[in-house]
Amino acid sequence: MALQRRQRRRRPTIADVANAAEVSTGAVSYALNGRPGVTEQTRMRILAAATELGWQPSASARALVNSRSYAVGLVMSRAPDLLESDPFFPRFLAGVERALFEADHALVLQVVGTDEAREVECYKRLAAAHRIDGAFLTDLRLNDTRFQLAERLALPVVAVGQPDSGSECQWIAPDDAAAMDHVVRHLTALHHERIAFVGGPPAYVHSRHRQKGWQAALEQAGLSPGPVAVGDFTGPGGAAATRWILSSRRRPTAIVYANDLMAIAGMTVARQLGIRIPDQLSITGFDDIPLAGHLEPALTTVREDVTTWGRLAAELLLAVIEERPATVPRLGPPQLVVRDSTAPPAV
Amino acid sequence: MALQRRQRRRRPTIADVANAAEVSTGAVSYALNGRPGVTEQTRMRILAAATELGWQPSASARALVNSRSYAVGLVMSRAPDLLESDPFFPRFLAGVERALFEADHALVLQVVGTDEAREVECYKRLAAAHRIDGAFLTDLRLNDTRFQLAERLALPVVAVGQPDSGSECQWIAPDDAAAMDHVVRHLTALHHERIAFVGGPPAYVHSRHRQKGWQAALEQAGLSPGPVAVGDFTGPGGAAATRWILSSRRRPTAIVYANDLMAIAGMTVARQLGIRIPDQLSITGFDDIPLAGHLEPALTTVREDVTTWGRLAAELLLAVIEERPATVPRLGPPQLVVRDSTAPPAV
Repeated sequence: MALQRRQRRRRPTIADVANAAEVSTGAVSYALNGRPGVTEQTRMRILAAATELGWQPSASARALVNSRSYAVGLVMSRAPDLLESDPFFPRFLAGVERALFEADHALVLQVVGTDEAREVECYKRLAAAHRIDGAFLTDLRLNDTRFQLAERLALPVVAVGQPDSGSECQWIAPDDAAAMDHVVRHLTALHHERIAFVGGPPAYVHSRHRQKGWQAALEQAGLSPGPVAVGDFTGPGGAAATRWILSSRRRPTAIVYANDLMAIAGMTVARQLGIRIPDQLSITGFDDIPLAGHLEPALTTVREDVTTWGRLAAELLLAVIEERPATVPRLGPPQLVVRDSTAPPAV
Repeated sequence: MALQRRQRRRRPTIADVANAAEVSTGAVSYALNGRPGVTEQTRMRILAAATELGWQPSASARALVNSRSYAVGLVMSRAPDLLESDPFFPRFLAGVERALFEADHALVLQVVGTDEAREVECYKRLAAAHRIDGAFLTDLRLNDTRFQLAERLALPVVAVGQPDSGSECQWIAPDDAAAMDHVVRHLTALHHERIAFVGGPPAYVHSRHRQKGWQAALEQAGLSPGPVAVGDFTGPGGAAATRWILSSRRRPTAIVYANDLMAIAGMTVARQLGIRIPDQLSITGFDDIPLAGHLEPALTTVREDVTTWGRLAAELLLAVIEERPATVPRLGPPQLVVRDSTAPPAV
């Protein structure tokens, strides 16, 4: 189908106003921004022309005057599968949007894969073109090079997660370790003693925190931490990890997963092996994805208030950009959502 | 925690260059954009100052000169639950990003809920501030008022879906009706004769297309379309619809769902009622979410190439914005992914 070429109403520009008022575009800019440099008579003529043409100040004009873009950036670096299955992204965006809308800022989004060179180029382009005044850093990694990159680019950032070290940047994150402590206490209260763990990639800071919370809670309960399998937050990864754990000689009575997708894939593997959930095996997830309550059995999991996280992260980033003093607010504690996939172990 | 106030390296602005070269900012603008209005000698002095200061053209400056923002907009209007559970959004963005990255355009994203007034305000703000040169319209509704809104705002748009009528805008969409035809043929080939349907909200154009495809295929097979329940694309909606369908006197042997989330919730309801899948009831979804293959039984569903859809939609939008002639490419046909949730009906 050929593109239909339609005459569109063109928005009036500063050049149109300048033409109409018979002045230079510089004079228009001075007049419209209330700066000295034009006579009062000229200013009135320019304002009249602008009004007649229906001219409105553009974000670009505002940005040039103030050296601000009134936009913040989010570069998501994730494998497509992970981006799709994780509720973090849309929940976080919903919160960010609320704060930005109120402050009349835009969100510039880039979705790159796991190619780090492309990720770096994204930040460079955004900063060089002054498209954004600051950025969120999500999915923090160990020794995350993005902090130095942002420093080099003079780009203010807020970390959406707790940096492991070496960065002085502002951050806000829920307490993943406390959430896992909560999960393990739930299982030990049900008298589980062999509790395995299926974690995320150890290169992510939040993977580490979740595993640390699981391990610390078990040690505090006087139990030896059971087998650990490193997953990748995807369904196939969770299934493979579960197969490995369930083939061990001393099979655990419970498996704690670092996200729901791996837990659900693990439930299917257990069922295929003829292991009944929760009678013979308790399973917990992490995220509370919309499906978690609609499975059989419904999944016991952890819910964090990611929307509030997004809102507060955006408010913090605006404060950092504007060099306003700000208090980093604390997020409420993660909630354990107890459903049917956990029960006392069969004797 | 008090915000740490750090001195940041400030990016040089046109004003800094003007100061260094002892000229007006207007002269800098002329020189840097290669337009007449300054002598060659002055131009050289300005370029030397810009180079020394490390000045780089900003998107704002480029935008002011060309009356372009080099960004396109996407306003997502969805209930949070729907945004989270639907793989459309991240898959689409991954494709969009590829095309925009190559064209050095940014994506400005706003996530609003289902409040139409807020949605309208979003578009108005984006257009009035010249933040975007055009926008995608997704989740098309019947008699969608956004087409007129875009017209009023002089905002070029591309529809991500097939407008029902009344709009002459460019659009690109997979063939949902053909996909459903594919699903029903699969079921009739297995000798199902009573095939029910759980649809999405009828206010969405794609809900209509999916139902139309289901109905047309049944009629063509000489079968009378079985019970229809209107869902809302969410888990609870799918569960309620399934309960209603399974309580009918002449229970269907198969249920076709308009998305995976409703199908998975429906599978749980059937199991709770003691109905075995697929022996006593075949179930099909739509979307192929990452979990679909990791359920027990794994879900037979439809996969559309949403990432390519995103890329082509972005390329089309850029052509529309630049008033270039463009051919709307066709998307490949949707794929039926046959797994274990469908089988011949028990006799």
